[in-house]
Amino acid sequence: MTMSIFDKLLASPNMMAVFDDAAIVAAMLDFEAALAAAQAEEGVVPLTAAQAIAAACDAAAYDIPALVTAGRRAGTLAIPLVKALTVRVAEQDADAALHVHWGSTSQDVQDTAMVLVTRRALHLLDRMLDSLCGRVLGLAQQHLGTPVLARTLLQPAQVTSFGFKIVNWAAPLLRARQRLRGAAAAALQLQLGGAVGTLAVMDERGPAVARAMARRLGLQAPAGAWHTQRDEWVGLGLEVALLTGSLGKLAADLALMAQGEVGELAEPSGEGRGGSSAMPHKRNPVSSMIGLAAATRMPQQAATLLAAMGQQHERGLGNWQAELAAWPDLFVSAHGALQALDDAFAGLRVDPVRMRANIDALHGLVFAEAVSIRLAGAIGRPQAHALVERLARQAASEDRPLEDVVRAAVEGDAGLGTKVDLQQLHALFDPAAAAGPGARLAQARLDELRAAHAAFGPFPHSAQGTA
Amino acid sequence: MTMSIFDKLLASPNMMAVFDDAAIVAAMLDFEAALAAAQAEEGVVPLTAAQAIAAACDAAAYDIPALVTAGRRAGTLAIPLVKALTVRVAEQDADAALHVHWGSTSQDVQDTAMVLVTRRALHLLDRMLDSLCGRVLGLAQQHLGTPVLARTLLQPAQVTSFGFKIVNWAAPLLRARQRLRGAAAAALQLQLGGAVGTLAVMDERGPAVARAMARRLGLQAPAGAWHTQRDEWVGLGLEVALLTGSLGKLAADLALMAQGEVGELAEPSGEGRGGSSAMPHKRNPVSSMIGLAAATRMPQQAATLLAAMGQQHERGLGNWQAELAAWPDLFVSAHGALQALDDAFAGLRVDPVRMRANIDALHGLVFAEAVSIRLAGAIGRPQAHALVERLARQAASEDRPLEDVVRAAVEGDAGLGTKVDLQQLHALFDPAAAAGPGARLAQARLDELRAAHAAFGPFPHSAQGTA
Amino acid sequence: MTMSIFDKLLASPNMMAVFDDAAIVAAMLDFEAALAAAQAEEGVVPLTAAQAIAAACDAAAYDIPALVTAGRRAGTLAIPLVKALTVRVAEQDADAALHVHWGSTSQDVQDTAMVLVTRRALHLLDRMLDSLCGRVLGLAQQHLGTPVLARTLLQPAQVTSFGFKIVNWAAPLLRARQRLRGAAAAALQLQLGGAVGTLAVMDERGPAVARAMARRLGLQAPAGAWHTQRDEWVGLGLEVALLTGSLGKLAADLALMAQGEVGELAEPSGEGRGGSSAMPHKRNPVSSMIGLAAATRMPQQAATLLAAMGQQHERGLGNWQAELAAWPDLFVSAHGALQALDDAFAGLRVDPVRMRANIDALHGLVFAEAVSIRLAGAIGRPQAHALVERLARQAASEDRPLEDVVRAAVEGDAGLGTKVDLQQLHALFDPAAAAGPGARLAQARLDELRAAHAAFGPFPHSAQGTA
Amino acid sequence: MTMSIFDKLLASPNMMAVFDDAAIVAAMLDFEAALAAAQAEEGVVPLTAAQAIAAACDAAAYDIPALVTAGRRAGTLAIPLVKALTVRVAEQDADAALHVHWGSTSQDVQDTAMVLVTRRALHLLDRMLDSLCGRVLGLAQQHLGTPVLARTLLQPAQVTSFGFKIVNWAAPLLRARQRLRGAAAAALQLQLGGAVGTLAVMDERGPAVARAMARRLGLQAPAGAWHTQRDEWVGLGLEVALLTGSLGKLAADLALMAQGEVGELAEPSGEGRGGSSAMPHKRNPVSSMIGLAAATRMPQQAATLLAAMGQQHERGLGNWQAELAAWPDLFVSAHGALQALDDAFAGLRVDPVRMRANIDALHGLVFAEAVSIRLAGAIGRPQAHALVERLARQAASEDRPLEDVVRAAVEGDAGLGTKVDLQQLHALFDPAAAAGPGARLAQARLDELRAAHAAFGPFPHSAQGTA
Repeated sequence: MTMSIFDKLLASPNMMAVFDDAAIVAAMLDFEAALAAAQAEEGVVPLTAAQAIAAACDAAAYDIPALVTAGRRAGTLAIPLVKALTVRVAEQDADAALHVHWGSTSQDVQDTAMVLVTRRALHLLDRMLDSLCGRVLGLAQQHLGTPVLARTLLQPAQVTSFGFKIVNWAAPLLRARQRLRGAAAAALQLQLGGAVGTLAVMDERGPAVARAMARRLGLQAPAGAWHTQRDEWVGLGLEVALLTGSLGKLAADLALMAQGEVGELAEPSGEGRGGSSAMPHKRNPVSSMIGLAAATRMPQQAATLLAAMGQQHERGLGNWQAELAAWPDLFVSAHGALQALDDAFAGLRVDPVRMRANIDALHGLVFAEAVSIRLAGAIGRPQAHALVERLARQAASEDRPLEDVVRAAVEGDAGLGTKVDLQQLHALFDPAAAAGPGARLAQARLDELRAAHAAFGPFPHSAQGTA
Repeated sequence: MTMSIFDKLLASPNMMAVFDDAAIVAAMLDFEAALAAAQAEEGVVPLTAAQAIAAACDAAAYDIPALVTAGRRAGTLAIPLVKALTVRVAEQDADAALHVHWGSTSQDVQDTAMVLVTRRALHLLDRMLDSLCGRVLGLAQQHLGTPVLARTLLQPAQVTSFGFKIVNWAAPLLRARQRLRGAAAAALQLQLGGAVGTLAVMDERGPAVARAMARRLGLQAPAGAWHTQRDEWVGLGLEVALLTGSLGKLAADLALMAQGEVGELAEPSGEGRGGSSAMPHKRNPVSSMIGLAAATRMPQQAATLLAAMGQQHERGLGNWQAELAAWPDLFVSAHGALQALDDAFAGLRVDPVRMRANIDALHGLVFAEAVSIRLAGAIGRPQAHALVERLARQAASEDRPLEDVVRAAVEGDAGLGTKVDLQQLHALFDPAAAAGPGARLAQARLDELRAAHAAFGPFPHSAQGTA
Repeated sequence: MTMSIFDKLLASPNMMAVFDDAAIVAAMLDFEAALAAAQAEEGVVPLTAAQAIAAACDAAAYDIPALVTAGRRAGTLAIPLVKALTVRVAEQDADAALHVHWGSTSQDVQDTAMVLVTRRALHLLDRMLDSLCGRVLGLAQQHLGTPVLARTLLQPAQVTSFGFKIVNWAAPLLRARQRLRGAAAAALQLQLGGAVGTLAVMDERGPAVARAMARRLGLQAPAGAWHTQRDEWVGLGLEVALLTGSLGKLAADLALMAQGEVGELAEPSGEGRGGSSAMPHKRNPVSSMIGLAAATRMPQQAATLLAAMGQQHERGLGNWQAELAAWPDLFVSAHGALQALDDAFAGLRVDPVRMRANIDALHGLVFAEAVSIRLAGAIGRPQAHALVERLARQAASEDRPLEDVVRAAVEGDAGLGTKVDLQQLHALFDPAAAAGPGARLAQARLDELRAAHAAFGPFPHSAQGTA
Repeated sequence: MTMSIFDKLLASPNMMAVFDDAAIVAAMLDFEAALAAAQAEEGVVPLTAAQAIAAACDAAAYDIPALVTAGRRAGTLAIPLVKALTVRVAEQDADAALHVHWGSTSQDVQDTAMVLVTRRALHLLDRMLDSLCGRVLGLAQQHLGTPVLARTLLQPAQVTSFGFKIVNWAAPLLRARQRLRGAAAAALQLQLGGAVGTLAVMDERGPAVARAMARRLGLQAPAGAWHTQRDEWVGLGLEVALLTGSLGKLAADLALMAQGEVGELAEPSGEGRGGSSAMPHKRNPVSSMIGLAAATRMPQQAATLLAAMGQQHERGLGNWQAELAAWPDLFVSAHGALQALDDAFAGLRVDPVRMRANIDALHGLVFAEAVSIRLAGAIGRPQAHALVERLARQAASEDRPLEDVVRAAVEGDAGLGTKVDLQQLHALFDPAAAAGPGARLAQARLDELRAAHAAFGPFPHSAQGTA
């Protein structure tokens, strides 16, 4: 896989390797070998042919640039590869060459190859999600009671628990891991239909060959050919998009909290990380950057899969090819983002002092709702809301703590004075107390999430079939 | 819901009604009534207040255009609606007015209202899928053995069974119905978090109120607030997109098979259906048109949901609002397409004679693979492929049946002549026999799909809670 | 244009009115009247017929919901409208009824109607751009020398002039206004081709009728029918998307500068503007919100136009209809955003004190590049960069002003001490001086932009033809 | 640009080379050399330094994979490249090393490098458009009078001239070529702003350096830094998208006309072109396939550019990086499609006999509008439309030529018989005559387009500056 150099900055080498040219050609050859083996098992081709074909299925022996050039002309990579494979088999066993690719079609081999490499891609995503979830949950535990500003519509809203915020970051990541496994179970299917999906060449033995082949490759045997019915396959891609959306939300929060004027978080620094060519003092949030870049591109990458679904008749013209070409993008973007955020959480610096300072700088305005609710018991909700709105404006314009302004208002109003306990009022302005409700919810949720995290076994779709 | 007039041509009145302004305001009021009732149940507010609030939650009493005008200024519809509701409650019970919207925030009411109307939208989709699946499966049964051209890359490929083709149309529709139900189970959740998701105002009683309220509205009680974690919600939208992708594939096939030069299918005609203002002879495929239009728009509609996922901190700025505004589009497009295709299948005209004529017009070329395979047994696959490629070109250029050309070649070649049985060769050119493998697969698959279709019970997410 | 109530919160009433059902039907009737008039002018139909047709072209006389219902069945709005128009004409003049819609086709009338209402939409955009550009340029003038942090990758970078920043907001708005006018000149064309684009029914008189009709409607006469060649039309839509992209950038900057922890800007407050249902103290940036929402949706709205370009043969199936339905979305989003930002700039509160405080809070770190450059003259660029990077870290970790740390380093190093003038070093830490280069560039650019702003005449595509 | 092996099948080697890693690194080094040279010209750095820097700017000397690895960590490619360049310069001239990258920032060099390689990409597009337009216009000349079915909504509509259809394919290609040149003039700008766009490091000499540097690189000197104002740049990308949309329309028409049942066109065949691994008789339309694949992906590729426009403050986080990474995709897709269609038109096979046969097979139904119009003169338009609609249905159901049915109806109706000349009626059914109006329009339009085609000079944005 050749990507533009700016793409590569956003990608992980591991995931690039999954989808590189040689890996895909190797997977296509795995298909051909498994097809012959399964056909031998079912008596469709001689066992010796299957063995000769398997022996020739070594990707290193093929001239990939030449295959690409011929494939561009043919409109498919399968034709030149099958041709080259046949030549190679024939060199060893002329009879076996008659059985290469028997009963199959270009789409069978290309789709199945993409399924095989995608399984590896899913392994990588699963493993990285495991790591990132572990880190995020660990951080949540440390900060259950840490007060931090909650912000709505990019404005300070109230005080919450930082642990609550972190738990909310973690939950969609665990869900994504579960959802990806579910989608993989549906989508990691063998494609084998022959020219038009009916397995016609193999007569009644077709379904048995398909089952044997699926078993060998460790894939689901499909209920039918899915040449032009891509819903389960695209559904898997959409799960990757959903995951990336959640990563983008996380990256956005990190970047906003790392702003110089906020300073509550910082990505890890270190030699060569996030520097600036012009500004020696800068530490750029490069993990957030990669997460946000992935989230910027992903909606379109997902939309391409949907746009390619209208595949005509028994093999699409243009749309199927567009889907194949676009498919790796989603995994490369998602894994790049996952890796970047995993790096960030490996050394994320949290500054509870700054969190507290940011709360304090607001002169108690973020406790206005709590005050309003307390006063509402005395004078009614609309009246309390209006009064507090007025007092909040006054506090802001006079640059005084809201607590002082409210206390003065209560003391200056006989009606209020009798109904409102000043001591209780004071307690409303305590950030640690204000973080309490969030902390309690977070604790309960964290227990659930940790249990769920621990319960994930290994990724269930093994790369090994019974071949 | 006001849509442009050209939008309305593609939409169903039923689904437009689900998302119209009054329906959404009514759902917001349902939220407020259920909140108060649940709070009364948990002792947070007096029962009389809950009753007074419920009495005021009649959408017909509110001036919706005025709410929109005020909401545009406020940046949210909830503020003016809650204000108007409070006034109305206060007219009957001043004390009850103190408890309106208690402990809740704008996003709680707007999100939950969207969930409530979306449940109705899903009912409509489910019901229409039931109808369409029934029709498609019925048609498949009728045409299991009907030979029709399979076409790959928009070229005639081989002969298949029309029933096989229809079964492949049906399978993703049944899957979509199942997937939508699963996604609904995850996504039809109450939103209740208060200002920043912690239910802080209601202290320890918050979670119990949420559970009671969810029960009353017939929704899932969420594991946590999902104010800015939209994965499950967007995941539901993506299922609607997937369904529409499958409908687009179906519509594309119908439109292509209905072309004048193909003529294998026709949408139903009838007074006012699919006419032309200029051309009296035309019958336009308006159902396919609507299906294709939905499929053209849907990838972008889905991408908007993904693009809006990066919702900052505890409430997104711009992105949440974009998601809310864009959400109904998916359901309106999908249901318009479903309705249109259901109309088409209600009176789809199938022309088996024309299907056969289209096969015959190809001079047997579509049997070339079968011939090649037969000859491969005699002379090897590459040789057979090359020979048949040459004979096929000859047949085409001389406008002769391939069978004649092949027979001549076999008879003219001593080597071949001894290995190839001309009678068996002749049988390869029989369309009915060629449809056999597809028909057999289709029969088995159809049995499964009919069983699955019959097993769907009523849509499980009842619009009725226990309120 | 699918407009749910949440859509309407983001839209302007003016632009919604441009595209409402009655306006589009009226524009379709304008087409029919102009067609008849132009045909009368060229002797294709009798003048009395044209007059009778014109008399019947009063949108108020038509039952729009009934037209929609019939149009949904017909697959086009034109058929039922032309039918109803014919009936109405016939009531007054049976002979004239023979000439209704003569030589035209559904697409002619629907496309031209969309062109006519789009011209009005462009007027609204142009006028609002005029207002917004005026406000932005005025603000730039006031703040040419105001120091403000420049921020790169969401980190404080250096000090710039706020006027420089504002001028950079303004430039793309002026360019968009110019580009929209250019695109309008290409795209505001009559559509008139008859059934398949050849004007066949009107023989040699077709082109003359088209010219006369274009003149009457104030549109360009097209070089040819553009039934399925949509590049110029879609090109206009893409300009609206580009404008919205620039508005999104502006809205993002506003929202970030209005964050509580930054506090450099605030949107205007005022009764009912940007409040919170839960939090009395909040002032939400609702204009930025609308701008960001538009920018979130616009890429997809533009992509739909591109996705619909593959219109088959002489009239597209599904894609043309999708384009028509989606077209108004772009204008409604863009104008909503423009209106919102115009509201914001009408009362934008700028806080130069806070801007200065944000600079000061960074302990001089943002002057690190300047220091590095000064030192580079003494010790070489890489050495200086490394030294300043180290000193910057030291300043940050010791919470000391960078100036002190640098001065100590210079004084403590004999080599440096002789090469670096401490007085000059001190001057590098003056924010007002640091704003100088930006201010100078901004002044020159502002002069150009003000001249360009003043030079815009009225929007050149008059809504009035010569009819 | 993420290029999997399936991507490469859709791309041209030429365009892949334009954007490959070495080309981008070389362009970055061109920037650095030109910066130093311009600074020497303006007295900002010594001439010897500029010479030493230029000598080190040889891309072959750099370890690109190592740069990528370091760049991933740094978040930008510029930092490791500038570092490596500085080391290399220092090896030859320690003093010169002090002046490397002076006054510039990462974004300056990355953006300008992308501009430089994009200019080459535009050259390739322009040249290929020249070739394709020449072929298409040549074909139009040959087929001005060839009758072919016009088809609307994928149904046969009327007879038109094939030349008319071809001319309509050509027009948007010529427009695209012109539009791309215009967009290039606006977008091929130097990026040079220094850390935050103010050129602060170079004081008053900054603008002069920028002008000199722009001249050396053959680029426009920008009116200001466009670090985060991307409208003109994205505008260029959108023109590439528009072009691809028009290519998609052309590819769709080719593919539809090449269907086996239509057979009016065929892509060139030839060794290895468009074969099938399973079906020896097939000739797949691989050029159309590539054009359609590009058009499937392009809306999303364009949307990504728009989605990345909200670049915060003075340098975007995530969005700018996403834009850089996505940018090459558009050019690679578009050029792959152009190349493919140019190949197709180089050997397109047109079958006028089949075109005529397809007309004839419709029993004259496509002349129904002409008949209706002729009868309308006698009995009124609605009556004629209804009568012909009825007769068309009769002809279709009885499988008789419409002409016979109409003649019988006229003869059997005394009223009609006197008003309708049967000889004139007969002439309406002549395909050659029916092609006349289209042929006349096409001839005039073709003359204009050929003149426009001939008037294009060489691509005006030379790759050579005055350096």
